[in-house]
Amino acid sequence: MSVDAAPVDAVPVDTERAFKLTLAYDGTDFSGWQIQPNKPTIQGMLERALVKLTRQRVHVTGSGRTDAGVHALAQVASLRTPNWRASAADLVNAMNVNLPPTIVVIDAVDAPHDFHAIRDAIGKRYRYQLQIGGLRDVIDYRYRWHVHHAINIDAVSEAAKRFVGKHDFASFQAIGSPRKSTVRNVTACEVIREPAVDHRGELVSIEIEADGFLYNMVRNIAGTLIEVGRGKYPPQHIDEVIAAKDRDAAGPTAPPQALFLKRVDYRPFP
Amino acid sequence: MSVDAAPVDAVPVDTERAFKLTLAYDGTDFSGWQIQPNKPTIQGMLERALVKLTRQRVHVTGSGRTDAGVHALAQVASLRTPNWRASAADLVNAMNVNLPPTIVVIDAVDAPHDFHAIRDAIGKRYRYQLQIGGLRDVIDYRYRWHVHHAINIDAVSEAAKRFVGKHDFASFQAIGSPRKSTVRNVTACEVIREPAVDHRGELVSIEIEADGFLYNMVRNIAGTLIEVGRGKYPPQHIDEVIAAKDRDAAGPTAPPQALFLKRVDYRPFP
Repeated sequence: MSVDAAPVDAVPVDTERAFKLTLAYDGTDFSGWQIQPNKPTIQGMLERALVKLTRQRVHVTGSGRTDAGVHALAQVASLRTPNWRASAADLVNAMNVNLPPTIVVIDAVDAPHDFHAIRDAIGKRYRYQLQIGGLRDVIDYRYRWHVHHAINIDAVSEAAKRFVGKHDFASFQAIGSPRKSTVRNVTACEVIREPAVDHRGELVSIEIEADGFLYNMVRNIAGTLIEVGRGKYPPQHIDEVIAAKDRDAAGPTAPPQALFLKRVDYRPFP
Repeated sequence: MSVDAAPVDAVPVDTERAFKLTLAYDGTDFSGWQIQPNKPTIQGMLERALVKLTRQRVHVTGSGRTDAGVHALAQVASLRTPNWRASAADLVNAMNVNLPPTIVVIDAVDAPHDFHAIRDAIGKRYRYQLQIGGLRDVIDYRYRWHVHHAINIDAVSEAAKRFVGKHDFASFQAIGSPRKSTVRNVTACEVIREPAVDHRGELVSIEIEADGFLYNMVRNIAGTLIEVGRGKYPPQHIDEVIAAKDRDAAGPTAPPQALFLKRVDYRPFP
């Protein structure tokens, strides 16, 4: 038999398929992304659904490990399995019937075999939601940091701009979780005023986009911006905090329930 | 001592003050409004807060008893107590620190001594939230009826109009909960298309306003409207269902988690 007989698109019988998943979750009732024994986690729920669907252990890699209580509007994950023969769209439906209502797969596409959700990510955008003053909302309180002090939103906006650019963000990295490099390129840091709602004071979100984030970086930036908003420091203080490269120079870590991973960017597949 | 010596605005020493409270709640984790032993209820939580604040048992009367799982944007309640000497605004704050985060007092005002939240209500507005098709939302699924069939929204709108007017709504009253009269005046029944959100199909709300509602009336109307939207009946069918005065003529009871008590109307205090 000549080698020419093999069809051009022949693949090994037990070849793995790679998928890129986009998913949303309400992090309220989860102990974060990363799988842990006897605790509900996003990764654990996804892998449990995949065991049912593929009859094998499938490892799911998220673009980043969101903390307990943190939500995602569009987290991205990669996985490989030889045992899914239906379409990627069918995988979306099959996973969603096997996931709790607080996790949903929004999209699945076939990906190059070496696609890796962490390594291949070129940018991310987070959203941090605040309520300033007003009465608590009986639903939305789970998804915002309710600040009871007066906040100068213009000062926060002014301070936010100072994060934009390529800086060493060592001051905004959680202690005890060092990375090789603490330099990141922040491409946007915006303060967005949301439409007013009765009895709810001011609703504001901070959105931050960068080529990558250090552990707790968004929550540490949010906590520092609120100190500026309270008048503890002027907006220019941000430059000094960045220059200090010292966690103690920045403000407190803002609470997790207000943080949403909004988007993860990748280059288009070849 | 002459009776003239008493000042004109004199009140008995231990007189009761009456309050009108406006409150919002997320009904998800409550067994409805009405107090029940060993179950979390809205009335139970309010009365527990009032015991702490007034050192006495205070009965709270809601404008209506919302069912388990039903929410309120602005429920109204009346109460009387001789033991609150601070302002009504202080009562708002004091109650809110003693309530779970899923219940909030939005407003409290001093009311005439005989103010009664049920008897004095002259109208109510409910909102019933639907999602038609699309993927479930990991947060909002708790607050909508997700319908997976194709729905003709124009037909639903057309059918909704037929509820407006003074009718006998016996067909839409839950079996086993008869009222003296089943005639109600529906002043609005509107189908509102909400802004589109990615992956979420169509978001639609039905808002119904009337001088009063029978038990399960809104959920039975919503269930019947969806049968029209699915094409099971034409919009004119609503007239026949109303005329039948028979619960079996109407559609199924729509689920509770999508229902919000939006407003309760009263005449201004004299």
